[in-house]
Amino acid sequence: MSLYILRIDCPDEKGLVHKVSGVLYHHELNLIRNDEFVDRTHGHFYMRTEFSGECQEEKILNALHGILPDAVTISLTTQRPKNVVVLATKEHHCLSDLLIRNAYRDLNLNILAVVANHDVLRPLVEKFNLPFHLVSHEGMEREAHEAAILAAVESYDADYLVLAKYMRILSAEFQQRYSNRIINIHHSFLPAFVGANPYRQAFERGVKIIGATAHFVNEHLDEGPIITQEVIPVNHTKTWQELAAAGRDVEKIALAKALKLVLEDRVFVKNNKTVVFE
Amino acid sequence: MSLYILRIDCPDEKGLVHKVSGVLYHHELNLIRNDEFVDRTHGHFYMRTEFSGECQEEKILNALHGILPDAVTISLTTQRPKNVVVLATKEHHCLSDLLIRNAYRDLNLNILAVVANHDVLRPLVEKFNLPFHLVSHEGMEREAHEAAILAAVESYDADYLVLAKYMRILSAEFQQRYSNRIINIHHSFLPAFVGANPYRQAFERGVKIIGATAHFVNEHLDEGPIITQEVIPVNHTKTWQELAAAGRDVEKIALAKALKLVLEDRVFVKNNKTVVFE
Amino acid sequence: MSLYILRIDCPDEKGLVHKVSGVLYHHELNLIRNDEFVDRTHGHFYMRTEFSGECQEEKILNALHGILPDAVTISLTTQRPKNVVVLATKEHHCLSDLLIRNAYRDLNLNILAVVANHDVLRPLVEKFNLPFHLVSHEGMEREAHEAAILAAVESYDADYLVLAKYMRILSAEFQQRYSNRIINIHHSFLPAFVGANPYRQAFERGVKIIGATAHFVNEHLDEGPIITQEVIPVNHTKTWQELAAAGRDVEKIALAKALKLVLEDRVFVKNNKTVVFE
Amino acid sequence: MSLYILRIDCPDEKGLVHKVSGVLYHHELNLIRNDEFVDRTHGHFYMRTEFSGECQEEKILNALHGILPDAVTISLTTQRPKNVVVLATKEHHCLSDLLIRNAYRDLNLNILAVVANHDVLRPLVEKFNLPFHLVSHEGMEREAHEAAILAAVESYDADYLVLAKYMRILSAEFQQRYSNRIINIHHSFLPAFVGANPYRQAFERGVKIIGATAHFVNEHLDEGPIITQEVIPVNHTKTWQELAAAGRDVEKIALAKALKLVLEDRVFVKNNKTVVFE
Repeated sequence: MSLYILRIDCPDEKGLVHKVSGVLYHHELNLIRNDEFVDRTHGHFYMRTEFSGECQEEKILNALHGILPDAVTISLTTQRPKNVVVLATKEHHCLSDLLIRNAYRDLNLNILAVVANHDVLRPLVEKFNLPFHLVSHEGMEREAHEAAILAAVESYDADYLVLAKYMRILSAEFQQRYSNRIINIHHSFLPAFVGANPYRQAFERGVKIIGATAHFVNEHLDEGPIITQEVIPVNHTKTWQELAAAGRDVEKIALAKALKLVLEDRVFVKNNKTVVFE
Repeated sequence: MSLYILRIDCPDEKGLVHKVSGVLYHHELNLIRNDEFVDRTHGHFYMRTEFSGECQEEKILNALHGILPDAVTISLTTQRPKNVVVLATKEHHCLSDLLIRNAYRDLNLNILAVVANHDVLRPLVEKFNLPFHLVSHEGMEREAHEAAILAAVESYDADYLVLAKYMRILSAEFQQRYSNRIINIHHSFLPAFVGANPYRQAFERGVKIIGATAHFVNEHLDEGPIITQEVIPVNHTKTWQELAAAGRDVEKIALAKALKLVLEDRVFVKNNKTVVFE
Repeated sequence: MSLYILRIDCPDEKGLVHKVSGVLYHHELNLIRNDEFVDRTHGHFYMRTEFSGECQEEKILNALHGILPDAVTISLTTQRPKNVVVLATKEHHCLSDLLIRNAYRDLNLNILAVVANHDVLRPLVEKFNLPFHLVSHEGMEREAHEAAILAAVESYDADYLVLAKYMRILSAEFQQRYSNRIINIHHSFLPAFVGANPYRQAFERGVKIIGATAHFVNEHLDEGPIITQEVIPVNHTKTWQELAAAGRDVEKIALAKALKLVLEDRVFVKNNKTVVFE
Repeated sequence: MSLYILRIDCPDEKGLVHKVSGVLYHHELNLIRNDEFVDRTHGHFYMRTEFSGECQEEKILNALHGILPDAVTISLTTQRPKNVVVLATKEHHCLSDLLIRNAYRDLNLNILAVVANHDVLRPLVEKFNLPFHLVSHEGMEREAHEAAILAAVESYDADYLVLAKYMRILSAEFQQRYSNRIINIHHSFLPAFVGANPYRQAFERGVKIIGATAHFVNEHLDEGPIITQEVIPVNHTKTWQELAAAGRDVEKIALAKALKLVLEDRVFVKNNKTVVFE
């Protein structure tokens, strides 16, 4: 008996919970967990339901479409590992954490390949018997390089792309191709310290807490919907390099937490924000 | 139009969400927020629903009892401040925080009176124009003193008793009279350091984090259902008195958070644990 | 036997710890705690020493000046409560926390008076038998109002001013008069969300952690040296008003922690940053 | 020019800081960072100094012994990676984190070998080209097995042993051989939940925060000196298996933080507690 995940979002109206739960009840499915949220600002309804049982997916979807508003988005899937392509540059800490988790099935994750613009992470990736694609940007125009990256990525059928400290900016076109399917880890507690070298910025500002932000990538750099944020206290004794070192552990934890949520279909994205059913 | 809170818990079975939401839908009530949880270990269902509308309470309750298992517990209330009697001894920090919050309506709280076994907090309580009852234990047997405390408490119609650093142990009889209605703040991160002077215990053990625990009181001292816990990092430089001072801020925050949850009817108690719909 | 606090900061050079500790040793003083820090970026040395004993202050200061660089700043004080004037507007939560701590001597704090531009906090302040000065800004030019505030403040001999949710901007002139002696609590995790209504900004950005920042006030609004920061996790279910309510507890804790540090002479300010010997 | 670390602990007396800093000053060494602590309960002095320069170690040590109390412990070392043997059983998460950090020199760590009582982690260790010793306990008496483990460990010249989820209890004799040199990660917020399956215990107690504790191992199981503790919030929705999964990230972070401190010679152990100069 499979485990299913049903996700619904639509304009809010009376009776939605009753109607949706009715479809599952009448098909004799076992509701395991149910989460709902109504965004009052936008009058929008979100629902995520885990259930098990003999599920005729077609019938369920038809029944739901018959009773829900036209503007509904419905997805119904079995719980399965998601296919991911990881993009990286030179820093290993987020990538190595993901490689270990992938090897031990700690997340709902199936890494298909790693694509990088430097070669230094190749030995790490090859330890784990995964394809490593070097797409160097040396001597290439930005557009040409991105096209080559895209070609490498598109040779796989990825549900999500993960930017594990990939230090190149992706064009709006690239992002739109993977709309709400690219997850980035930013090395600051956004919206503080957007842009380059946030740890040096944090050092110069003299903050007493630093952090990291995992977010979906959109066309505005560092401004995409936030999934998770993690912080740690720091003090005046730390150089910016020590802040960066301390931050690396926060980055990898924030990214792993965000991926756990996304890969278990717990995150809805709308209005540049996320609804997360933890 | 009032805001209502419906709380249901019962043995789990198929269709509960559908049935309950159906009653509200058919009475044309506006579901504002809905939380459910199924405890798989015990096969038990919990649901809390906020709704608004023209509610004929009798009818709703009858309709619900008609479709839910016999062993159900249902409560349906309007959102209103809860009446509380606070018990205290000599320490002011939790009490003063509650008095301020009460004065400014920061919590869903209506303090009726403070009952204490020492007189030192009287001036504080009287600043806020609340009744202060001294029930000294000097020269009294434990039973007689508790009877006097109980008499003072029972002269008020309290929904909950709050032990704001009340340093006397209450008998099982006393507790049963206010079953799941007495909230205590314990000055440790339970179950670490039960018993007397937990900060000195923490100092001697050399822990690197200390905490506080807000919990319902049951017949086993320091072992009641936990509502909230709060922690802060500490280090070797702190004396146990400094740990205690640092802990006081944690205690008052933990207690206030627990009260917010309880007084908004967000906490279910069963099997010596809590289900908390935050 | 008094407890003394010696604070030194000067350009770094070899032997400073040896020389300073030698002065104390030769005067047979009991070193209780010693903290040093060298800022390598600026080549600057900071030292704070607690000691007890028969201290001839003049002699100690002369001895220190004789062996330390000319550009040194030295202060030598007994540990005593610091005199503070609190500025407020309408919100009570930081002010009430300080009033309680003042009444119970929880901090090294002696509140002389509260100055406010609205009258709503008068009853609270008067409960604690402290002077309350209303300096309404109604119908006044900014300069005239600030002059009236300054007159009220200057009628007291304050070591520090505390802006406990005082919602008016102070001019550079005002600030320079109390250079590094005005502490503000900002309701965001600076440098995120400078400016007005940070909780609404945080809500709109969809952050997953909110915070508060206690800082010295300088001529650049919200950009003064940070003393302490505190954070709490939040999620998509919170309205911005609920974020603000949750934030209030963080604000009062951050302000109290900052004041504890400042009032115990643990904070040095230089280069728009703080060195904090916790 | 090397970086040196000088560690001193001895009964407290007047002038210790002055005397020690004098030795360094007169040898024209550059003091980089200095930390001191006096434990008033036991009248004991701790000092850790980082310095650089032309250091004649013999001379420095003689000079220090000439002026410090007889009961002093002094160590003077250059900053170098510490040699470590890791013991493990079946769980990978702490070990894999250390292997990655070792490979990338993230800590002051040089793993010599991994010794385990199961074979499942062999492929992981061999990915990183490190020796893996299987010492199965199958069909062996406890004493014989421990002797075999000890033999494997002693074939290396380890500064420290790290128990990275090694699930066998070590005898007092074993521990004494590596007194204050064995670091364990315990999967609870000690002293809560000593003994077996702490996550199940935490689940049954209904705690709202779980944690992990890195500590030196002594003859009393789970009671050795605590180095670091880490916590995360949990709630009623988590099964104990989910608590364990969430706890794994906390365990590996707590262990890595503890190792960073120990391997940088920042931790003193005395009276079953640690003094940590972070």
